[in-house]
Amino acid sequence: MLNIMRLKHLITLLFCIFFYTLNAQKNNTVSATNTGFKIIPLGVKGGLDEANLSAYLVAKNGTDNYICLDAGTINAGLKMALKNSLFNESSAEEIQKKNIKAYFISHGHLDHLAGLVLNAPNDIAKPVYAFGSVIDVLKNNYFTWKSWANFANEGDKPILNKYTYQPLTEAKEISIPNTELYVTPYSLSHVNPYESSAFLVRQNLDYILYLGDTGADTVEKSNKLNLLWKAIAPLIKENKLKGIFIEVSFDNSIPDKSLFGHLTPMLLMQELNSLNNLAGRNLKSVNIIVTHIKPCDNCEPTIKKQIMDANKLGLSIIYPEQGVGFVLK
Amino acid sequence: MLNIMRLKHLITLLFCIFFYTLNAQKNNTVSATNTGFKIIPLGVKGGLDEANLSAYLVAKNGTDNYICLDAGTINAGLKMALKNSLFNESSAEEIQKKNIKAYFISHGHLDHLAGLVLNAPNDIAKPVYAFGSVIDVLKNNYFTWKSWANFANEGDKPILNKYTYQPLTEAKEISIPNTELYVTPYSLSHVNPYESSAFLVRQNLDYILYLGDTGADTVEKSNKLNLLWKAIAPLIKENKLKGIFIEVSFDNSIPDKSLFGHLTPMLLMQELNSLNNLAGRNLKSVNIIVTHIKPCDNCEPTIKKQIMDANKLGLSIIYPEQGVGFVLK
Repeated sequence: MLNIMRLKHLITLLFCIFFYTLNAQKNNTVSATNTGFKIIPLGVKGGLDEANLSAYLVAKNGTDNYICLDAGTINAGLKMALKNSLFNESSAEEIQKKNIKAYFISHGHLDHLAGLVLNAPNDIAKPVYAFGSVIDVLKNNYFTWKSWANFANEGDKPILNKYTYQPLTEAKEISIPNTELYVTPYSLSHVNPYESSAFLVRQNLDYILYLGDTGADTVEKSNKLNLLWKAIAPLIKENKLKGIFIEVSFDNSIPDKSLFGHLTPMLLMQELNSLNNLAGRNLKSVNIIVTHIKPCDNCEPTIKKQIMDANKLGLSIIYPEQGVGFVLK
Repeated sequence: MLNIMRLKHLITLLFCIFFYTLNAQKNNTVSATNTGFKIIPLGVKGGLDEANLSAYLVAKNGTDNYICLDAGTINAGLKMALKNSLFNESSAEEIQKKNIKAYFISHGHLDHLAGLVLNAPNDIAKPVYAFGSVIDVLKNNYFTWKSWANFANEGDKPILNKYTYQPLTEAKEISIPNTELYVTPYSLSHVNPYESSAFLVRQNLDYILYLGDTGADTVEKSNKLNLLWKAIAPLIKENKLKGIFIEVSFDNSIPDKSLFGHLTPMLLMQELNSLNNLAGRNLKSVNIIVTHIKPCDNCEPTIKKQIMDANKLGLSIIYPEQGVGFVLK
């Protein structure tokens, strides 16, 4: 009898070991494909080309539950993503309705929200997250009946109640419904005293940081970038920050007084040097995604060369392309 | 002596006849190629696709001195026109700077002016013509430092003074500097009491009429289209009106309460029937250019079929394409 009991225990133990191993392998597999973030740029430029303005879809890698960081271009970018087989849906409208779960608007400038406003008629009910100052611009300048239609839940009557304004609190992390993502917003200076925003996006223990338009602290007479760098430096030291999306609008030839709250390659590297110092010189482990280059004759190659020349830290620089997805992990 | 004088007079007379004839022939040639208007649609749709929104370049045929009627999309449309060899310039920016002499904005909705706002940084000083109510929207909603930058000559300070607001007076024709064109504006109703505009463009004795977004008089509880039809009916009778650009946003299935100040094929034909009656049943001589179809699944073919079915007058219907030029004469 005792032997039979022992045999039963042994069989149970073997089964347990077998299932534990199987489950661990499965978890490893899931964990391998779900590490980091999937990024789909819907628009990458800093003006002029109406079909390619700042907007970045971000999801936990392995899911299709995206948030949209800025919304300069949506439809044209989704069409490109569809053409590049990044989605199985049949149209850009279907992807927008189904896969974009929320919008985050960094500031009130048209090149960061035109796609949201123009595509509102065909979208479904969703939250729009932004600082109060940015919601005020959406409410008073764009979602009004004089300038468009009021698709939001506050402001000019009649209210169509499709988008729900969700005011953000600086440095306070929130969970984004219907996604695996959490976002912490930070205030930026974009022609002081006008406010822009950075969004620190988390899934599990991984982070990416997206900055809307911003000037350098020295030019803006501000300490907002310095405060942001201090906030995220520990994540770099712990190797948790997978990418920083940051703008370079103009080349180095543009004088400070004509920068209108934007960065040049020189100012970018000045700021990234400060961040590197705060982060124990570990910035090299973070991908730097350069956004918002303002088109003009030869501007793009000039800016790229100036960034390359100034990149003494040997940082990994990525130039995103519209509709071309990539993974940060 | 007298004979020599007579001979001199005769020679002078012969020379005069010779040069007069030569000049008349030359004028005839010029007149033949310069009859009517050259049209280049920069954007033709009524929403969603950020790269293809209402904007029409119009010049006297044989010149490149364009005015831009609405400005939803500029850069993407000019790129398309360049690709189609409609210009000799090297870039869209160059064409915009050089060949667009003035903008006419029909109303303050984003899909009719996003291109103007977004492309302002690379443009040169120009007039922007609109009714006072529309200038107010540009001034208070778009060309402000919260929502963009103030590239205009009035409003939010600092004023960058690139665009000069030129308020229009209803039914008063004005000459457009640096072009061969004259424009008479008329008020339209677009979700009563919101105002939109029609622009009657003249060169010599030829005319075209461009309507911004408009509802039907019956739906808008307005007589603005009726007043416009009465104003232009004599031009149709005299065979001077070469084309009417008019919107059809939705198909016939959309109920009146959801039209938001737009036309359907049925309402279009209802209005064109009124115009035809006022114009001595001569509307068949005028090209009808259908603008502003709002994209959705199968909307475009449905609208086209409904227009075809309702076209009992046998009108000549044109569906403009982005970047594809045509002549109206």
